[in-house]
Amino acid sequence: MVHAPARPPAGAPPVRINLYSDTQTRPTAAMREAMMAAEVGDEQFGDDPTVNELCDRMAALMGKEAAMFLPSGTMCNVVAILTHCRPGEEVLAHETAHILSSEGGVHAALAGVQINPLQGARGMFSAETLRAAIRPATRYAPPQRLLEVEQTANIGGGGVWPQAELDAVVAVAREQGWSTHMDGARLMNAVVASGIPAAEMVAGFDSVWLDFTKGLGAPLGAVLAGSEEFIGNAWRWKQRLGGSMRQAGICAAACIHALDHHIDRLAEDHANAKALARGLRQIPGMAVEEPDTNLVFFDPAGAGIDATKLVATLRMQGIQISMLGGRIRACLHLDVTATMVDETLAAIREAVAAA
Amino acid sequence: MVHAPARPPAGAPPVRINLYSDTQTRPTAAMREAMMAAEVGDEQFGDDPTVNELCDRMAALMGKEAAMFLPSGTMCNVVAILTHCRPGEEVLAHETAHILSSEGGVHAALAGVQINPLQGARGMFSAETLRAAIRPATRYAPPQRLLEVEQTANIGGGGVWPQAELDAVVAVAREQGWSTHMDGARLMNAVVASGIPAAEMVAGFDSVWLDFTKGLGAPLGAVLAGSEEFIGNAWRWKQRLGGSMRQAGICAAACIHALDHHIDRLAEDHANAKALARGLRQIPGMAVEEPDTNLVFFDPAGAGIDATKLVATLRMQGIQISMLGGRIRACLHLDVTATMVDETLAAIREAVAAA
Amino acid sequence: MVHAPARPPAGAPPVRINLYSDTQTRPTAAMREAMMAAEVGDEQFGDDPTVNELCDRMAALMGKEAAMFLPSGTMCNVVAILTHCRPGEEVLAHETAHILSSEGGVHAALAGVQINPLQGARGMFSAETLRAAIRPATRYAPPQRLLEVEQTANIGGGGVWPQAELDAVVAVAREQGWSTHMDGARLMNAVVASGIPAAEMVAGFDSVWLDFTKGLGAPLGAVLAGSEEFIGNAWRWKQRLGGSMRQAGICAAACIHALDHHIDRLAEDHANAKALARGLRQIPGMAVEEPDTNLVFFDPAGAGIDATKLVATLRMQGIQISMLGGRIRACLHLDVTATMVDETLAAIREAVAAA
Amino acid sequence: MVHAPARPPAGAPPVRINLYSDTQTRPTAAMREAMMAAEVGDEQFGDDPTVNELCDRMAALMGKEAAMFLPSGTMCNVVAILTHCRPGEEVLAHETAHILSSEGGVHAALAGVQINPLQGARGMFSAETLRAAIRPATRYAPPQRLLEVEQTANIGGGGVWPQAELDAVVAVAREQGWSTHMDGARLMNAVVASGIPAAEMVAGFDSVWLDFTKGLGAPLGAVLAGSEEFIGNAWRWKQRLGGSMRQAGICAAACIHALDHHIDRLAEDHANAKALARGLRQIPGMAVEEPDTNLVFFDPAGAGIDATKLVATLRMQGIQISMLGGRIRACLHLDVTATMVDETLAAIREAVAAA
Repeated sequence: MVHAPARPPAGAPPVRINLYSDTQTRPTAAMREAMMAAEVGDEQFGDDPTVNELCDRMAALMGKEAAMFLPSGTMCNVVAILTHCRPGEEVLAHETAHILSSEGGVHAALAGVQINPLQGARGMFSAETLRAAIRPATRYAPPQRLLEVEQTANIGGGGVWPQAELDAVVAVAREQGWSTHMDGARLMNAVVASGIPAAEMVAGFDSVWLDFTKGLGAPLGAVLAGSEEFIGNAWRWKQRLGGSMRQAGICAAACIHALDHHIDRLAEDHANAKALARGLRQIPGMAVEEPDTNLVFFDPAGAGIDATKLVATLRMQGIQISMLGGRIRACLHLDVTATMVDETLAAIREAVAAA
Repeated sequence: MVHAPARPPAGAPPVRINLYSDTQTRPTAAMREAMMAAEVGDEQFGDDPTVNELCDRMAALMGKEAAMFLPSGTMCNVVAILTHCRPGEEVLAHETAHILSSEGGVHAALAGVQINPLQGARGMFSAETLRAAIRPATRYAPPQRLLEVEQTANIGGGGVWPQAELDAVVAVAREQGWSTHMDGARLMNAVVASGIPAAEMVAGFDSVWLDFTKGLGAPLGAVLAGSEEFIGNAWRWKQRLGGSMRQAGICAAACIHALDHHIDRLAEDHANAKALARGLRQIPGMAVEEPDTNLVFFDPAGAGIDATKLVATLRMQGIQISMLGGRIRACLHLDVTATMVDETLAAIREAVAAA
Repeated sequence: MVHAPARPPAGAPPVRINLYSDTQTRPTAAMREAMMAAEVGDEQFGDDPTVNELCDRMAALMGKEAAMFLPSGTMCNVVAILTHCRPGEEVLAHETAHILSSEGGVHAALAGVQINPLQGARGMFSAETLRAAIRPATRYAPPQRLLEVEQTANIGGGGVWPQAELDAVVAVAREQGWSTHMDGARLMNAVVASGIPAAEMVAGFDSVWLDFTKGLGAPLGAVLAGSEEFIGNAWRWKQRLGGSMRQAGICAAACIHALDHHIDRLAEDHANAKALARGLRQIPGMAVEEPDTNLVFFDPAGAGIDATKLVATLRMQGIQISMLGGRIRACLHLDVTATMVDETLAAIREAVAAA
Repeated sequence: MVHAPARPPAGAPPVRINLYSDTQTRPTAAMREAMMAAEVGDEQFGDDPTVNELCDRMAALMGKEAAMFLPSGTMCNVVAILTHCRPGEEVLAHETAHILSSEGGVHAALAGVQINPLQGARGMFSAETLRAAIRPATRYAPPQRLLEVEQTANIGGGGVWPQAELDAVVAVAREQGWSTHMDGARLMNAVVASGIPAAEMVAGFDSVWLDFTKGLGAPLGAVLAGSEEFIGNAWRWKQRLGGSMRQAGICAAACIHALDHHIDRLAEDHANAKALARGLRQIPGMAVEEPDTNLVFFDPAGAGIDATKLVATLRMQGIQISMLGGRIRACLHLDVTATMVDETLAAIREAVAAA
């Protein structure tokens, strides 16, 4: 039951280019120094000044009243859904949403909610699709309570929701009296790519969270933001789940460092993604999805090589890359340089030629 | 939040032809007499001879080791899923399944399971569709545990699963180590329509239940069957849910009466359904689904009358009929005669002509 | 895992005096006739006139706005707690409460609530004890939400809460902002014994239910009463649990018959209980609790015979009686006459003499 | 709903002696250096070498096959109970257990278990008490599944279970087929105080965890140990709860540092605790519980000063101390020196004299 990059084939060299996931970034030396220097206290009692600073900054960045620090993004989703919903209620989300496919069924298991999977291209759905999923208000149908969107949409290719479409689905939720929650694991990628300020982008959402362990490069932690009341209620669940820590300021310091130093540079990852896509597209037969942000999905079958085969070949050259639903996903992040992208393209061209 | 036939329009006469649902059948005089005469005991203690007889007969009919009496079909689904699954596991079912749309989200709320909605015509899905929904065995994906099918498929038009397709999806489940559960609310309609004995039809299912309040005409009760071990474990949940009753033999007697007298006659309902479909099809523009059993779905839009309008017009003549997902559903059962079908057809023709 | 009267010893005669439980009463001929004659409809749609009549009468009797029919008393507790509480909240109840010991852990399993067990004589607790159990309002302590009392207190010897004590614990709940729920399985025994009208007795309770399968002699069913809003919300859970039935009026008719004919006669059961207690007390060494209502608890150890032995000896004479927590419980009800009490006393005297 | 040391009274100086809780220890400079130097990887994928080293060392220390790193001790309890139990089952624990009073009702909320609170002095209970709580194996009683003990017993005064008593309760659990779980938040205090090796002390437990944020002084983290199979299943819940982190080795490094440097020194805390108790006992009327480990509970009422008053008076001198259930609790740990104990005693004597 282990989920991991396939163990390296016999004789494989160490990984030198890691396109597997932006979760695998290592804290930089400067980030470690910020952690070392962090002033700490007991965060359960609201006495950790660094955690408090991080939460204040995140609330401001998201345009919300309050925020809380949690050990992971999954816990942000768990806490948010437990806080928004009661057992028996329904959440509406895209059929490829992380909460459906990648959180072990926790939202049914612990919050008792049913997730209604919506269809649509690139991990997004239209207001019409959402409206068509409205259930009649009978004793038989599960009461619908929460709209959830992922920004950027991971399985959808790291796509950025057009703001008008985001506003349109929020409008349906408002009209129906539903709450709204954004899984913003890679929200800052969307912000950097679109140029829309975070607070404006998430204005329609009652809760939103940002993961610091992806492109932002922190070792652990995510921050969930919302109204004072929402965060007050969410504390109950943070406590119950065991997400309350003690001198967590050491980890929060890494997140503050990321806010200061690792956001603008996401543009480099996006540029690298576009360069990779461009290069791939020059290989005849390669099917490549145009990247909005730092994820590049492609399918090499038309170029004459099987995806599994290509992944294994690259791994033998120290290049790690993942498969997601039959496609290959390359993830660009702060440990991957433009030169590494060139090297990767060369290795792929060679593998295709040899196939 | 009431779910009910729309309250009758002002001036509407009493219902004289009830095509709304086979759940609305009234116990016949003979059935009431059987209830009156029932020998009873304390069913929680296994001391009600009539309940015991019903369970024994149902176990035999279904080809299972044991069976239990419950107050409703919904509770059969709830008990079965609580018994088969642990919180966090996933159930695979058709996207129109009763457990998804019509049981108030109970399976997430109480059993903590996620339901993976499969697509396919007529409320059924192929082995290929099922196989495509298999999740990787990682720590991230919800573990898949149970295949659920509905026989007949209600929203699917009362269709009967071809036995080969049923066997094929069961084979996938077996290969994956999943348990299998059949929502057999109208199972005996499928048995009568197909000529396949119930025990043979459900041989691949670890649990199966039959509702006695639909075409079988009993006032309340359903029976869930499975292995000795399954039913033994299910008793825990029957007790916890408050599904254990006392002198329930009075109700079980109605079910035994239905087994003896109301099964073969389901063929009449099927014949009436076919007659209704035939008659409807003679109306130009009427879109009619060919009925396998006792449900006739049709859409009158092409005949020049809106479905809602037609339903209201019929109601003013004492004919009650329901809408399900934009279509009209006519349900044939033991309170609806061939003459009533003719009357209904005449009324529809007239309404179309007047439109 | 079977719960039942111990299977009769080899050679035991049929039971002719059943002091085991008032749940084992059989419907009388008159009650069966009332059932036979019942007018019925689809109770899920609010269309069963007999169920509606029962609910109206029960709401009036309890002095509440509304009521709902359910297949069992356990389901009344389950529905009420699911309606009053959210997961993670705490219910305060006596340590011998049925919800703690006899409902299979369902309230934790399905409603996610913790039950705080209070101590006190005869299944009751004082306002002081309740007040001492108040938790600090921190993020750590479970939020307290609901006070539950049992009237009469079963394991407490069928005792009737003195109205002043009941009012005092309700006052604590009100002050704390908790809801209040009464498990009134044998409420009418308390009403008949105390002379206090039901509506007055339960005025402080947001929800209350009465079981019709105990001394009232109906084959199945219980009625839960509360405000319009409470019952409206409770319908969601009735539906989800599978407690919605169809032509349930047949069973409701038995309950209406019980309201008309089986309440005043509970006084006979109480008189028989007192007679039994009086007779037992004349046996030297017999420890007998003074009955308030229809339950007589006694311990024969001091009279020189082991409780288990005495139960077995009586069973060989066709007298069935139960053990609860080391004591013997005799339950008086409409199938036990004064003559049977005398016979039972004679058999006990004889068993003691022979020991 | 905030839980925290009461906000300091107006004019209170900063805290200079913190007897409030050993959770408030700050990482030492040496510990921070160990964190800085930590080699890290993606711990969700088993690729963080420092987390792996910590888990290996803890498994060895506890004499178990495997271990997992989690962000808090509460999450260790949550994961363990979710792994051991199914909804509807019962856990047996002391009535003062942390899982009952201080985890927000999470075990009912999320695992669906009922906790049966046992009585006994000093947070412990005897095998006889445990045996008396065994429920009959009926369909009505919740099935009992897990014995939980706290070592040391926090509310019990930091007492160490005599090994023979621990073995005796484990023997009852084994005989009943229950699993066993130890909340070892302060287990190493018990090990140091008793001289019994950890592996020997916990040999009877299927799962056990140690908190690194108490006397061991790490900023966050706890480690849960058990069999390979148990830890394998527990990973599902770690993932679901959001307890899977990324480059958590930075935090694990602090725990390894604590294993190397902060265990033997717990003896100093115990000596300080004894010194504090000795000093307190010399104040006439002071009721002092003899400390086994690092917690000193006392009640100053007999010395003429109210506990609340004393706590406030000390706080005005920069000495922070807590109240727990009417008593005062002083917690000794690595930030509290022998000199600080003397100062505290002097301040208490003065407060008593002035009262």
